[in-house]
Amino acid sequence: MCQLLGMNANTPTDVMFSFTGLATRADEHKDGFGIGFFEDKGVRVFIDHASARHSAIAELVKTYPIHSDNVIAHIRKATQGRVALENTHPFVRELWGRYWVFAHNGDLKSFHPRLHAAFRPVGDTDSERAFCWLMQELAKAHAGVPEIGELSRTLAELVPELHRHGTFNMLLSNGRALWAHASTNLHWLVRQHPFRTVSLKDDDVRVDFAQATTPNDRVAVIATEPLTNDESWTAFRAGELKVFVDGAPLP
Amino acid sequence: MCQLLGMNANTPTDVMFSFTGLATRADEHKDGFGIGFFEDKGVRVFIDHASARHSAIAELVKTYPIHSDNVIAHIRKATQGRVALENTHPFVRELWGRYWVFAHNGDLKSFHPRLHAAFRPVGDTDSERAFCWLMQELAKAHAGVPEIGELSRTLAELVPELHRHGTFNMLLSNGRALWAHASTNLHWLVRQHPFRTVSLKDDDVRVDFAQATTPNDRVAVIATEPLTNDESWTAFRAGELKVFVDGAPLP
Repeated sequence: MCQLLGMNANTPTDVMFSFTGLATRADEHKDGFGIGFFEDKGVRVFIDHASARHSAIAELVKTYPIHSDNVIAHIRKATQGRVALENTHPFVRELWGRYWVFAHNGDLKSFHPRLHAAFRPVGDTDSERAFCWLMQELAKAHAGVPEIGELSRTLAELVPELHRHGTFNMLLSNGRALWAHASTNLHWLVRQHPFRTVSLKDDDVRVDFAQATTPNDRVAVIATEPLTNDESWTAFRAGELKVFVDGAPLP
Repeated sequence: MCQLLGMNANTPTDVMFSFTGLATRADEHKDGFGIGFFEDKGVRVFIDHASARHSAIAELVKTYPIHSDNVIAHIRKATQGRVALENTHPFVRELWGRYWVFAHNGDLKSFHPRLHAAFRPVGDTDSERAFCWLMQELAKAHAGVPEIGELSRTLAELVPELHRHGTFNMLLSNGRALWAHASTNLHWLVRQHPFRTVSLKDDDVRVDFAQATTPNDRVAVIATEPLTNDESWTAFRAGELKVFVDGAPLP
């Protein structure tokens, strides 16, 4: 299985600490990694088919502070599809003049939907097929970019169709909100004032968030497994879909 | 005006030498840069709104050998659109299950086509509008991915529509071929056996390509201005569209 990391913040925030935590798990997840950063409407994605533990690109991401309001990262252990750049998450498509970024952890069995519209997979993973199908169905359901609440309702109708085919832990963002769905393993927390020092579970790294934040900052972090020891992570229920906006889940 | 760099090769080749040459011109072209690398059907794009002369991401591109068969790079001097990530070339869209990468140098006046289909600009440049229109018209002209010759004929019909609105120097690739169109400034050459030492025009860098190549390698390089002193570059004619495959222009 792969590992997911998502970040949604109310102010552009770097994700070096959390990505470092994710990358230490890359020994078992050596079939590539990727990370997409939204900066307002723009997005940049770094992908590599080398392990996040050894890649020069991963090294850049760990050390170069990119400030972003929505981040989706993925380290891959291939289950379907070859180890190739076109099979490396996250995937990006444009819909309604916004970029959409998607990453998936899991395994969909016998999922071969009719993709008759403008979204076709380039690679050969079940994940990219699922993403193209989601984009196609969102495009059919709304004429233009809907409000976040409406999008969440449409996604809540669509996602069970995918979940039916197997494990579907996923992160999706359009740069305004971040949607997260769990079939099996996904955890989240919100960091906000008063910030304090936290330490990574898998690595000898500590950071004092009070040094780098203002009292107004708020950041939600979503990860397959809790990344830190000294914070309280909440597990998603099976089949739960949450949407994060401005660093917190919407009720 | 911006500067373009394209590379099309018959074997995956790194572009560190040519990108270094391009980046030395970034003092006047300080409004961001971007570079897209195809590796088979996959693509990765590095973009930054910092100058290619100072960006940590540009530094990675200059020193980390990414082997690619089609590369499109761009350094930007903003004419239309703010300096923002979503306005940074190259742009990427998916059509017929292939990624398409596009960069433009020039300035299109009063170009506001009807974009009624699946390709909408995210930013506010004339360049991304032109790309979305090209993708829309290609999608209308062909039901599935056509042969390179057919694509070239369709592009030869479409490109004059853009050229009519102003300066349209552009590079476009789907990972199999690279199309280049010049309104004003664009030059090309082919490097092949016997390879020799060449030196960058704007920087004190020399490289002996014989050290890193086999006699079968062939690479076409396309650039706004010649990048080297000791090679013979051919200027495009105004309105000329060329397609490069396996490191050479098709007749």
